[in-house]
This record gives sequence, C-alpha cells and structure tokens, in this order.
Amino acid sequence: MKDVLGGICAPKGFKASGVHCGIRKNKSKRDLALIVSDVKGAAAAVYTTNKVKGAPIAVTRSNIADGYAQAVICNSGNANTCNADGELKAARMCELAAEYTGVNAKDVIVASTGVIGQILPIEPIESGMSALVKGLSYDGSDNAAEAIMTTDTVKKEFAVEFVLGGKVCRIGAIAKGSGMIHPNMATLLCFLTTDAAVLPEVLHSALYDVIQDTLNMVSIDGDTSTNDMVSVIANGTAGNAVIEKTEGEDYNAFCDALKYVMTKVSRAIAKDGEGATRLMECKVYGAKDKASAKIIAKSVICSSLLKAAIFAADANWGRILCAIGYAEAEFDITKIDVDLASSKGVIAVCRNGNGVEFSEEKAKEILLEDEIQILVNCNDGDAEALAWGCDLTYDYVKINADYRT
Amino acid sequence: MKDVLGGICAPKGFKASGVHCGIRKNKSKRDLALIVSDVKGAAAAVYTTNKVKGAPIAVTRSNIADGYAQAVICNSGNANTCNADGELKAARMCELAAEYTGVNAKDVIVASTGVIGQILPIEPIESGMSALVKGLSYDGSDNAAEAIMTTDTVKKEFAVEFVLGGKVCRIGAIAKGSGMIHPNMATLLCFLTTDAAVLPEVLHSALYDVIQDTLNMVSIDGDTSTNDMVSVIANGTAGNAVIEKTEGEDYNAFCDALKYVMTKVSRAIAKDGEGATRLMECKVYGAKDKASAKIIAKSVICSSLLKAAIFAADANWGRILCAIGYAEAEFDITKIDVDLASSKGVIAVCRNGNGVEFSEEKAKEILLEDEIQILVNCNDGDAEALAWGCDLTYDYVKINADYRT
Repeated sequence: MKDVLGGICAPKGFKASGVHCGIRKNKSKRDLALIVSDVKGAAAAVYTTNKVKGAPIAVTRSNIADGYAQAVICNSGNANTCNADGELKAARMCELAAEYTGVNAKDVIVASTGVIGQILPIEPIESGMSALVKGLSYDGSDNAAEAIMTTDTVKKEFAVEFVLGGKVCRIGAIAKGSGMIHPNMATLLCFLTTDAAVLPEVLHSALYDVIQDTLNMVSIDGDTSTNDMVSVIANGTAGNAVIEKTEGEDYNAFCDALKYVMTKVSRAIAKDGEGATRLMECKVYGAKDKASAKIIAKSVICSSLLKAAIFAADANWGRILCAIGYAEAEFDITKIDVDLASSKGVIAVCRNGNGVEFSEEKAKEILLEDEIQILVNCNDGDAEALAWGCDLTYDYVKINADYRT
Repeated sequence: MKDVLGGICAPKGFKASGVHCGIRKNKSKRDLALIVSDVKGAAAAVYTTNKVKGAPIAVTRSNIADGYAQAVICNSGNANTCNADGELKAARMCELAAEYTGVNAKDVIVASTGVIGQILPIEPIESGMSALVKGLSYDGSDNAAEAIMTTDTVKKEFAVEFVLGGKVCRIGAIAKGSGMIHPNMATLLCFLTTDAAVLPEVLHSALYDVIQDTLNMVSIDGDTSTNDMVSVIANGTAGNAVIEKTEGEDYNAFCDALKYVMTKVSRAIAKDGEGATRLMECKVYGAKDKASAKIIAKSVICSSLLKAAIFAADANWGRILCAIGYAEAEFDITKIDVDLASSKGVIAVCRNGNGVEFSEEKAKEILLEDEIQILVNCNDGDAEALAWGCDLTYDYVKINADYRT
C-alpha cells in the first residue's frame, strides 16, 4: 500500500471538475463540483444521523437504492436544508448533471454544504454547468476538492494504491470538514472513488465499518451536521476479480486501503477544524473493550476546556482526567495513566489517576507542536482507539460569529 | 413567596464568612468560605456524576450519611482532585472547622473548587481559620459568596421568603459557576440554607427533584466538573411543623420555594458563564413528553455553533434546527416552529421545520439584548422545559487558555 497523487482521479476512469458558479459571492472560490466515472459503478453512502437532513440526502438515498451510481454533483455555500423546495432543487441538480454528461439522472449522487435554511438558488448552477462539464478531466481532483470547501483552509484529497489479486487498484478521496463536525455515523462530506470491483452491498459494509474507526472518531465542535454524507463509487476498471463477500483476503485488503485513506481524511479534517492551530489526537489503550476505548477517546477530544488549554500549549491535564471521568465507559479511574506527546518527546503527567511531578517547560515544548498526542493507558485490558480533534481558538469564535454575514 | 436580601443568611440561625487565606495569589480575592448554623440541621446533597470526583465529595458524603450537618467549609483556587492526599486534606478542613467553631467535624460539609491535580496546600487554610471564624456573622453571605468564586464575574446569592403552616420560612443560596458546567445531576457548587424544618430524606428528595429542572438544565461548556456539589442545611429555626413526607401542601410549598431560588441560581450561572455576554434561555413547549422537551432544550443551549452566532447577535436559526435535529428525543421535525425573543419583541424564524421570511434588522435588535429566548414549539403535545446557557465568545477561549498560568 502506498500514497499516490491525484485524489479522486487517482483511480482509473474518474474525471472531476470544479468551478465558481455564483452561489458564493467570492468569485475566486469554486463552489460547484462534479465527479464522473467513465462507467457506472457500485455505490454506497452513509449519511448523517441528524433528524434534520439536507434535501440532497433524500435524493441521493433514492438514487443509489439500486446500488449503483456514476456521478457526484455537489455545491458549497448553501446546504439546501430546511427549505420547502429542497428536494426539487436537489433532483434538478441531478437532472442537470445528467443532461450535460449523458449519465442517467438516477445514477447521480447529489450533495450540498453551507448555510442551513436559505433557499438554494438554482440559476447559478444551471448557468455554471457548461463550464463545469467542460472542465472535467482525469486530473481534476484538485478543482473538485476546492469547490466543496466551506470554511476549510486547506484542500483535503488523498489517494492510495494497493493490490487485489495481482491487480493494482486505487482509492481516492476528497472531503470537506471544518465546522459542524461531530462523530455520528457520517460527519462532513467525503466523496471516495475506486477502480476496484466490489459488489454494492459489500462496498457498503466496508464503508460503514471503516467509518466507525475513522470519520466517526473526529469532532471539531460537537455539532452533528444536517448534510453529512460519505459516498463511494467503485467502477471496477482496475480489472480485479469482483469482491463479492465481506471476508477473505481481497475484502480485508480493500478495507485496509479504505481505512488508510479515511484515517488521512479524518486527521486532515481535525487538523483543519475551524480556527484550529493544532491537531489533537487521543490514543486510548489498555482499555477493557473497544467501545470503552472509543468513548473515552472521543470524550477527551471533545472537551472545550481541554481544547482551550491545548490552544495555549498548557499542560492542564486535570481537564483530561475530567473528560475521561464523565465518559460513559467502563474503566477504573484509579488505574488511568496519561502522557502527553508530540515530535518533541513524551512526558508523563498522571499515574493511577493522580498527578505526577513533571517539567512544565518540557510539557510546553511538546505542546507547542502542531500535532499533539494525548496517550491514555487504562491499564485494564488490551483494547485501543484513536480519536481526532483540534484546539479551541479565538478564530473558531470569529469564524462562527461571522459565518452568515 | 417573595425575594429577600441576605443570601444564605436570610434564613434564621445561619452565620457566614469569607476571607483571603492565600490559596489564591491575588490577595484581593477571598478564597475560603464558612457557613455555620446555630443548631444542627437536616442535610442533603447531590454530587457530580463524573467518575473523577474531588476528594471533598467522599468526605462530605460520609459526613452527611446520617442526614445531619451544621457547617460548610469551602475553598476556591484548588479543586483538591486527583491528589493522593486529597481525602486527608478534605478531612483536615472539617477538623479545622470543628476546632474553631465547636461544631462536630462529622457535621461539616466540605468542598473545593479550582485547578484539578495540584496538591492542596493546607497551611493557608490553617492560618486563615482564625480570621475566617472571627468574620462569621448573620449578614456574612456576601463574603462567603465571593470566597467560592473562581472565574465568576458576579456573586451569586439569592433568598426567598415563603410561608409553611403560618410560619414565615426562608431559603437562601450562594453558588459558583462559570466554567466546567454541564447538566448532569449536580453541576457547580451551590450551598443552600433554610430555616424550615424538614426531615433529611424529605429534604434530599426535594433537592434532587428540583435540581432536575434547574441546575441540570444549565450548560456553559459541556464539561461536567469533578467537584460539583449542591448541599442544603435545614436548621428548623423557623418553627414550622416538620415536613415529614414528600407530598402535601407544605412539601409542595417548600419545593416551589426551592425551585424558585434554584431557577435564579441557574439563570445567574448561565448568564455569568465564562466569557459570556448573553444569557441564552431555550424554552421547548408543545412537546410529546417532558424528557423530550428537556433533551431538545439542552441540545439547543449546548451547540457551540449557535452559541457563537448568538455572540454575534446573528439569527442563524439553521443552527437551532441542526441542534434540535441531533437531540436524541421524540419529535417530528416537520412540525417544529422556532421564534427568537427578548425584551425587544418576538420574531418567527421557522415554521414546520422550514425557514420563513423575517426582518434581519428586527432579529438583530432582539438578539442584541443580554437575555435571549429561543422558543421551540414541537406542536406535538403539551410538555415543556427550560434550559439555560450562554454565548461562546473570545473571552471564553482567553479565560481557558490562560486559566492555569
């Protein structure tokens, strides 16, 4: 397995494009993305668990109910959520994609991201389609990745190459994150492509399972979005023997590659959380069971107080203990050890639930790095989990106080 | 029932005091509080559900296991939590209170609030006892209220007068809040006094029930503290017939008065949340059942995104819908109506789960007030609930990035 360039266009047979169509006022920001596979592929998606669901989710769910898709269309700048005409507009976006690309409208995955509760203007999308389709290319991942960004400050695109039964396969991903990000089924937008051949139900199983340890272990602000969606199209152009069951060497290799890419996406989203200056990774190990390890890890990366302390590179480990303490999980607080780590080293701050003396200077040096690890040993078993978050900064407040205006 | 002055000293037979003993560096800030009842009274307390518990909680729990107490001692500046010698120090505080006041050490409620995981220095408390006891007076509530503050910017003291069987009774309260505040059993420190005569188990029942609709409906930052405690001492000096059961006119009148005071405490804590500029009250009504109403109301006031929008007085109601949407409660999103209100008026922003046109100018005028109401009608029954929070501001980040240093 190795990293490759090209994002969602790294797998064979996928074109992508991204343009500014005018949903956003800022003309230098692309706001409409399109991904098209040369051939129809198996498709799967996982959606937000928020009861308020963006209109595109209902349309996508219906379109891929048969297990197949060929294209993705997505706008940023408007979530098309809580609008009476939302589903009509989302369906219209699929029709436009169909009209301009020749793909069947029922094979289009549609998504929107941005402000909730404002009517989605369809005119900019209609007038932007021509340029959007003209821009489709086998190295267009970059433009599509930009077009789905909202308050993201960096593009998120990744791709990995791996082998299935002697055939070279690839999985690519683009994603948007930044705000309204909290682990729950599927959080944020992430579009995956692969040239591996996989049956739809097997693809769904792989996607669902991998999400539990990757995207569902990310939180920026505790707010589960209304429009979250992760989708994958597997167009089979790599020529591998179709993966037909959720076990065996090929399935496992595919899941490993998918998990590898999704872990990269998860870390990238956490690191680029709204206003973030640092990636906060919490590794819980020695836990009684995996569920407990996950709950504790998430609790730690969600603590507003800890996030503010990490912004100040302050080793206020009491807040870590506090967040572990209110996690609804199985553990013995008197066995908990906590270390802080980064590329500058590791420092022990807590043993058996009590503080230990440590050098504040060394702790500061470790915490000033832009990727911080919080290591929690439960000394109570051998289960482990990772979760990713970011610090809480003035800019988070600034971004979200100003977002709509 | 009417508001009266005097805080915890409004009920007959309670003295209080507060001094600077030196746990905090800032000499102008009192950091040690004492409350003493002239006679032993029935006592009850409710504690944090965090598994990491401040050492004082174990000691208090043991001391009031018999249902009686006569004094409260509390320091700020250090939480006495996650320290190997924590319980010894907490017990020592009770002994000091006993030594200097003549009260039995086993009748002392002890509490600490401040930084977690730093050894509590007992010397400042020992050397401060003499001045602390000398300062005890029947109008000392103010000093005690100040001494328990951490990042609070205003003192929280309230008292109410009511009648039980022809006898005038009072309930008084002081509280500290501000950070690490999230509804879960008992959040924050709150010490209540009353001169009503109530049996211990009845007192506990009243306290527990009232907390469910008051303190447990407050959140500042989603972090359930390790040291939270609400206690009440009922010294019976008002001369009413002892309330012996959890029903009947007297019990209900007592609960009403307690709820009245605790609602004031709850609102005050939310309004003085760390960095807060606005009180955010969410009223959910027309709900299918009370549990659902409470879950929805809490979800709304906990949303970081909404809190940041309220800081900017931005009517970004989509974030309210989003927070309702991920509440794990029973409701039909297509029936939800949302209004925003303050002393400047009311404005409808959402009907049947979809946006309605409204004047942004009028909404801004409403939201610029320092007490904001978010009114959510579920149109699905007749249950209702209130929850209280505050906006998320630059100062929340500033306070918590700087707290330990």
